[in-house]
Amino acid sequence: MSKELTSRAEDYSKWYNELVIKSGLADHSAVKGCMVIKPYGFALWENMRDQLDRMFKDTGHVNAYFPLFIPKSFLSKEAAHVEGFAKECAVVTHYRLKNDPGGKGIIVDPDAKLEEELIVRPTSETIIWSTYKDWIQSYRDLPLLINQWANVVRWEMRTRLFLRTTEFLWQEGHTAHATREEAVEESEKMLKVYAEFVENYMAVPVIKGVKTANERFAGAVETYCIEAMMQDGKALQAGTSHFLGQNFAKAFEVQFLNKENKQEYVWATSWGMTTRLIGALIMVHSDDQGLIMPPKIAPVQVVIVPIYKGDESKPVIDAKANEIIAELKALGISVKYDNSDNSRPGWKFAEYELKGMPVRIAMGLRDIENKVVEVARRDTKEKQSMNMDGLAGNIKKLLEDIQQNMYNKALAFRDENIRKADTWDEFVKMLDDKGGFIAAHWDGTPETEEKIKEETKATIRCVPLNNQQEAGKCILTGKPSTQRVLFARAY
Amino acid sequence: MSKELTSRAEDYSKWYNELVIKSGLADHSAVKGCMVIKPYGFALWENMRDQLDRMFKDTGHVNAYFPLFIPKSFLSKEAAHVEGFAKECAVVTHYRLKNDPGGKGIIVDPDAKLEEELIVRPTSETIIWSTYKDWIQSYRDLPLLINQWANVVRWEMRTRLFLRTTEFLWQEGHTAHATREEAVEESEKMLKVYAEFVENYMAVPVIKGVKTANERFAGAVETYCIEAMMQDGKALQAGTSHFLGQNFAKAFEVQFLNKENKQEYVWATSWGMTTRLIGALIMVHSDDQGLIMPPKIAPVQVVIVPIYKGDESKPVIDAKANEIIAELKALGISVKYDNSDNSRPGWKFAEYELKGMPVRIAMGLRDIENKVVEVARRDTKEKQSMNMDGLAGNIKKLLEDIQQNMYNKALAFRDENIRKADTWDEFVKMLDDKGGFIAAHWDGTPETEEKIKEETKATIRCVPLNNQQEAGKCILTGKPSTQRVLFARAY
Repeated sequence: MSKELTSRAEDYSKWYNELVIKSGLADHSAVKGCMVIKPYGFALWENMRDQLDRMFKDTGHVNAYFPLFIPKSFLSKEAAHVEGFAKECAVVTHYRLKNDPGGKGIIVDPDAKLEEELIVRPTSETIIWSTYKDWIQSYRDLPLLINQWANVVRWEMRTRLFLRTTEFLWQEGHTAHATREEAVEESEKMLKVYAEFVENYMAVPVIKGVKTANERFAGAVETYCIEAMMQDGKALQAGTSHFLGQNFAKAFEVQFLNKENKQEYVWATSWGMTTRLIGALIMVHSDDQGLIMPPKIAPVQVVIVPIYKGDESKPVIDAKANEIIAELKALGISVKYDNSDNSRPGWKFAEYELKGMPVRIAMGLRDIENKVVEVARRDTKEKQSMNMDGLAGNIKKLLEDIQQNMYNKALAFRDENIRKADTWDEFVKMLDDKGGFIAAHWDGTPETEEKIKEETKATIRCVPLNNQQEAGKCILTGKPSTQRVLFARAY
Repeated sequence: MSKELTSRAEDYSKWYNELVIKSGLADHSAVKGCMVIKPYGFALWENMRDQLDRMFKDTGHVNAYFPLFIPKSFLSKEAAHVEGFAKECAVVTHYRLKNDPGGKGIIVDPDAKLEEELIVRPTSETIIWSTYKDWIQSYRDLPLLINQWANVVRWEMRTRLFLRTTEFLWQEGHTAHATREEAVEESEKMLKVYAEFVENYMAVPVIKGVKTANERFAGAVETYCIEAMMQDGKALQAGTSHFLGQNFAKAFEVQFLNKENKQEYVWATSWGMTTRLIGALIMVHSDDQGLIMPPKIAPVQVVIVPIYKGDESKPVIDAKANEIIAELKALGISVKYDNSDNSRPGWKFAEYELKGMPVRIAMGLRDIENKVVEVARRDTKEKQSMNMDGLAGNIKKLLEDIQQNMYNKALAFRDENIRKADTWDEFVKMLDDKGGFIAAHWDGTPETEEKIKEETKATIRCVPLNNQQEAGKCILTGKPSTQRVLFARAY
């Protein structure tokens, strides 16, 4: 397959699809809507997962594992939840296959019909709260701070690798608390953890906010979110944290004896991040030559390509490369040495550019004689000659610089593309001409929000936390408003 | 719930079931046959997973992720495979629910029937080899050394926590090779990795061997296994590694251009280990007071219990405990400090005994004055007074000693319970009176093996690798045999 990508300018969507496949992150599978996460993509996910997991544990959470299946009746127990989730699900109705009496392979055994159908979890609030009922009796059992890493399934008609797949990987935190205040504090704390992770590790700036009622999680009292801006100006929700009030506790009858010796319903939160974030990473940082991986979560931080000239140069260059590798590893830097002889250096350069490895080192015999190597950084494509003395330390600094530069660049782009609109015409024109986020007044009603969405495909991404209060008029209805909210078209 | 366990002598099976639940490893769920892995059990699984994952990566493997679902027709493609696996599976037939027009919750939408049913993976050979077809063209694409950590579902009528559950967690390696020799070498290598992990980290001695045709994995040419002995003398298969020949390559038409420029079918292996291993860990090491965790994979290696006497002792003891914790952590030892004031030291001692934490340190004011602590090791229940000077280093040595002692004890028990039987009567009596593994001659036919199983419930666990060759007569048929094989009743 050619490495040439369609350019972003030509067709952003096509560029994305080609990039995911050609860079080796993921692939389509034989099952409609489900993806295969290839080794390079999975190594990226492992780095993301491990870092997030550390942050969850540092904030007092533990992991557990709950069943893949949810009895159908559980979904109906929380009224708003069933409206939002119960519909597009994989439904298990039978538990056995048998040989086709007609001799054509295997068929579903009609005698093995389940009494109650099982749903492949689209999210686990219901199965988890049905379990918490047995675990929580007294305030001494609280808080319960549990996270789960799992696969979930939401049936999707139109899918795109990472961005929208029928099965995806995620983590879902489900916590139980004795007081409303504590639960609200937890959902805000986890939003901060998410923002810190996405900004500091993925180099993707985010806006923290709350969702409007229309966009809230099915069953939540309040949905906190972080929103990121892609290079095409569209928004992508990068993580959500929900304050669930006592909704699930009431649906599953989870009460506890409080310090005053009274029965009370438990307060809940849930929060999740998914493989979708990889889509955001790609769309925020990559260019027409390929991915650009933020060093802190890159599967490989440094690739070394030897420039052989004749067979006799091989042992000399390999020996020097091994010295450098050892020095880099000693500083905790991950490194790949590509001395395969079935492709030329130019091919390798293009391959690692496509894969977005942050730093490439090239070295030939002459470089070794001169005690230098050629170092190319992926983000700016700048090349420089670096002295071999102190190389590892300088590469480490360079990686830090790349991480910071990627964040700064994305932040500058994001900030340039948040604009204020004060009239409907201005709003529509801005959306069509420039995209990005638009800060505009809204009258606060779900009806207006719905109408704006119908007419422009833009939704309210969030009401930013600590939003500035200012009197204004709704861009659609002209009714009074007290603050601007952020609109955008979104993935 | 009382901590008192049924004793092993009274009812081994009941003891096991109570222990799993009371120690907080796992619990039953609302979904028949599916378990909830509780935080303590999941922390154990994480330690096992992380260590195995390191060993896989050290032997050149990478992780990836393939779909949860398998199209029904895929299962029929490998003839032996479908016989072994296709039958007891969770079958997804629909992709949508809708509100019951009769107003009673939600029902399966009959209009959302899948054209082809999807099976929740019982194992992933078929979906993975259908993918490998696209990834493998030439010998340059080989070997492909991929592992997946995943959940799988095999419908079970009679389930037991960890030992046999409808859904379980596992890893499955799926490798592709250019030659038969290389694939055989890979399956043997992974068997060694498993044996090393189970013996050195779980402190469970195993016998490496190959399965007979009857017990072979559905679709394999050869199944290598490691077999462990439980305290009740029964066997538990602790891991399997399969040489699959070209069976799956042929079923999914996966060919490659070899170095001689000829199309050839690819050679395959697969190998897996599951949460079932936790059942083995429990049944090999635990006693009537609870679990005994091998230090190398224990979720918590050391628990410190302060013995307060009056409120004024608290700050003094806490300060000293924090010093000790810092010293232990500096040596990479995981430690829990239980200074909760809602239970007494005696209750805590019993709790951590039940949870099997390898080392318990208790300390009061007087101990601090005398510069000593009381150290109890879980495996032998011995207590000793240890000087605070150099405590962390000595605890580290103690943990190593516990690890070794646990292995030695299990090994001695296992070796005492492998016996030779030379006649049928001897075989049956030995099995009923003493259990354990029986080394006996067998005529090599599946029919005899089947008959022995029917009459005694004992199966051939394996033909040990490098088995001693000796002429003998089959215990059932008297026909000639060239070697003894290992029989046992098994989990």
